[in-house]
Amino acid sequence: MSIDRETETGSNAMAAARGYRRIATEEAFATAEMFELYRKLLAQGEPLDRGFHSLWGFYLGSPSDRARRIIERLQHLDEQRISDMDASGIDVQVLSLTSPGVQIFDPATAVSIARSSNDQLAAAIRKHPERFAGLAAVAPQRPAEAAKELERGVRQLGLRGMILNSHTHGEYFDDPKFWDIFAAAEALDVPVYLHPNSPSNELIGPLLQRGLDGAIYGFGVETGMHLLALITSGVFDRFPKLKVVVGHLGEALPFWLFRIDYMHRATVASGRYAFLKPLQRCPSEYLRANVFVTSSGMAWAPAIRFCQEVLGIDRVLYAMDYPYQFVTEEVVEMEHGPDSIEKRRMFYQTNAERVFGIAPPAN
Amino acid sequence: MSIDRETETGSNAMAAARGYRRIATEEAFATAEMFELYRKLLAQGEPLDRGFHSLWGFYLGSPSDRARRIIERLQHLDEQRISDMDASGIDVQVLSLTSPGVQIFDPATAVSIARSSNDQLAAAIRKHPERFAGLAAVAPQRPAEAAKELERGVRQLGLRGMILNSHTHGEYFDDPKFWDIFAAAEALDVPVYLHPNSPSNELIGPLLQRGLDGAIYGFGVETGMHLLALITSGVFDRFPKLKVVVGHLGEALPFWLFRIDYMHRATVASGRYAFLKPLQRCPSEYLRANVFVTSSGMAWAPAIRFCQEVLGIDRVLYAMDYPYQFVTEEVVEMEHGPDSIEKRRMFYQTNAERVFGIAPPAN
Repeated sequence: MSIDRETETGSNAMAAARGYRRIATEEAFATAEMFELYRKLLAQGEPLDRGFHSLWGFYLGSPSDRARRIIERLQHLDEQRISDMDASGIDVQVLSLTSPGVQIFDPATAVSIARSSNDQLAAAIRKHPERFAGLAAVAPQRPAEAAKELERGVRQLGLRGMILNSHTHGEYFDDPKFWDIFAAAEALDVPVYLHPNSPSNELIGPLLQRGLDGAIYGFGVETGMHLLALITSGVFDRFPKLKVVVGHLGEALPFWLFRIDYMHRATVASGRYAFLKPLQRCPSEYLRANVFVTSSGMAWAPAIRFCQEVLGIDRVLYAMDYPYQFVTEEVVEMEHGPDSIEKRRMFYQTNAERVFGIAPPAN
Repeated sequence: MSIDRETETGSNAMAAARGYRRIATEEAFATAEMFELYRKLLAQGEPLDRGFHSLWGFYLGSPSDRARRIIERLQHLDEQRISDMDASGIDVQVLSLTSPGVQIFDPATAVSIARSSNDQLAAAIRKHPERFAGLAAVAPQRPAEAAKELERGVRQLGLRGMILNSHTHGEYFDDPKFWDIFAAAEALDVPVYLHPNSPSNELIGPLLQRGLDGAIYGFGVETGMHLLALITSGVFDRFPKLKVVVGHLGEALPFWLFRIDYMHRATVASGRYAFLKPLQRCPSEYLRANVFVTSSGMAWAPAIRFCQEVLGIDRVLYAMDYPYQFVTEEVVEMEHGPDSIEKRRMFYQTNAERVFGIAPPAN
C-alpha cells in the first residue's frame, strides 16, 4: 500500500480524514558541528568510552548503505525530512539530538554544543511549526547549567522537554548530584526523555565482544537498568511530579514488572544491600504514575498491546525512531489491527499532546 | 483459599480431579558438600567472581528470614520438600542443582561435585518417583567430561536433561569449545536448561553498585544476553534439534523479539561486526523452534499470555522457582483466569512431559 505525498496542508487534511494526527516522539537529528567533534574523538587513540567508539565508529566510518543513509538523514532538518515524514504518514516529529548527544564531550564543549544544537532545532521548528516539535539537549556534566539550558529551551525556544541519553562517562542519573536537572523539569512541568546510550564501560564487555552492544540488546540493558535505578534511588519520591518518557516500550521493564516488585520487596526486607532503602510505593506504581513509554523500534502490535494492558492505554505513545528504524509502511501495517479509533487517537496523538504539551491542530 | 495437604496418593487424586498435574520445572536444590565449598570460596580474600560473592555472600551469610529459609529448603530432598509441594498444589518438581552449581569451582572439583550431586538427586527421585524428576549438573570447565556425565545422568540415573547456569568464570556457551555438551544433549534428545547466574565480572559493574545484580534485573540481563548469543553464534544451525529451556519467560527475549529480528538483519547486512555471520533463519524463528520458556519467578498472567501469543501455547511451561519464590497461593491465584482446561493442561503438564520426557501418570 502506498501513501500519497502530502504537503504541509495535505498532512493536516489527511490527519483530519483519518481522525487523528500521527505524532512520532523519538525522532533523531544531528548537527554537522557535533559530527565533526565525534570524528575528532574517534580519531584519538585509546577510546575513553568503548560503546561510543563501537556505535559512532560504525555510523561515521562504515561504507554500508545503512550507515550512509542514517548519517545523511540525521542532518536533515528541512524539506527532505518532511518528505520522509509524508512518505510514512507521520504528521509531527518530536525531535531530539541523537545519542549520546553532548554527553560524550568535556563539560565546556558539552554546554556549548547543547546550546547551539537547541538553537538550530528551534530554528527548524520555527520554519515548520506544524510538523516539528523538539526536546532540549543539555550537558549533565554541569547539572546547574543543564537546568538553566532546559529553562531557556522551554521558555525562550518553545521546546517541549529534555532528552537525556542514559549514562555520561559511566555516571547515571540516580546520583543525586544530577538532581538539579530533575528539579528543573518538575518545576517547568516538562518531561525528561530517557534515551538509550551504548552500555557504559563496566557494563559493555561481553556484549561488545558478541556484537550485541547496540540496539539489538545492549541499549535495552543499559537503559532498562537506568530507569530501574532511577526508581530504586527514590528519585520519584523526591520529585513526585517528575515525568519520564522511555522508548522501546519501556526497555522491557513492563515485561519484568511483576518480578521487579517481588524481588525489590524481598531484597529490601532482607537487608541485602544497606543502601537499598524502602520506597513510598512499589516499583510498578512509579512505572504507572511517572513513566510513559513510546513504541520506538518496537512497531509490533503484541508488545504494544501488552504495555497498554499492564501500564494503561494513556501511557503508551507512538514513536518511529527515525532515521534508525525508518520503515515507510510501519504505521499503515500497524493500523491493520482491531483497535478502535479512540485507542489509536490516544496512541498516535493525544497522549503525546498531553505529555509534551503540544497544542491540538487548529482545524 | 487453602489447599489440603496431600499424600503422595492424594496428589494423584487431586490432579485427576483437577484434570491435569502441575509440574514445576525450575526448582532448586543444593547439597551440604557444595555449600561447604561455597563457604570456603567466600572466606577467601579477593573475590574471583563478584556476582558469586554478592549472591552467596548474602544467602550463606545473612541472618534474614529469607536467606535462612532458602538455605534450609534448598537442602531438603525428602518429606519437607514434598510437604511444601503439597501446600502449594505442586504435583511434580523437576529439580536442578542451584546456580551457579559447580561452575564456580576449579575443573577437578567441578567434575567431582557434579557427579556426587547427580547421585544424591537420583537417590531422592528413586525414593519419590511420582513427585520428583531431575536435571543433571555437569562441569562445563571440562566439556568432554560434561558430555559423559550428561550421558551417565540420562542413561544410568534417569535424569531428564541438563542444567547450565549461564557463564562459567566469564565464559559463555556460544564459544564452540563447549559444543561437545550440546552435541551430547542433541544426541540423547534431552533439553538443556539455561538458568541464570549472576552477571559475569565484565557485565556486573553498575548493576552491583546499585543492588540490581540479582533476580530483580541482573539475572535477566546475563541470561537474556546468553540466550541471544547462542542464537547469533549459530549454535542452532549447527545443532538443529537442540532444545533449550529458559526460565523467567525467556529472560525478556520474547518481548524484544521484533527488535532483535530487525536489528540482527540490519547489523549483519551492514557488516558492522565482521564476526557476526548470517544465520539460516531469523532469531525469532529459533526462539519458536528450539527454545521453550518457563514461568519461573513470573507468576503473572499478562506476561504468560503474551509469551503464549508470540511463541505458541506449546512452548510455555510452568515453573515456580522454589524455594526462591515460594508462594503457596501462586497456582491457585493464577488459575482464577479465563484459560480453558486444555490450555492449562499444556501449561502445567503436557508441555513439560513432552520437553522433559516425563511419563504421564499411570491412572
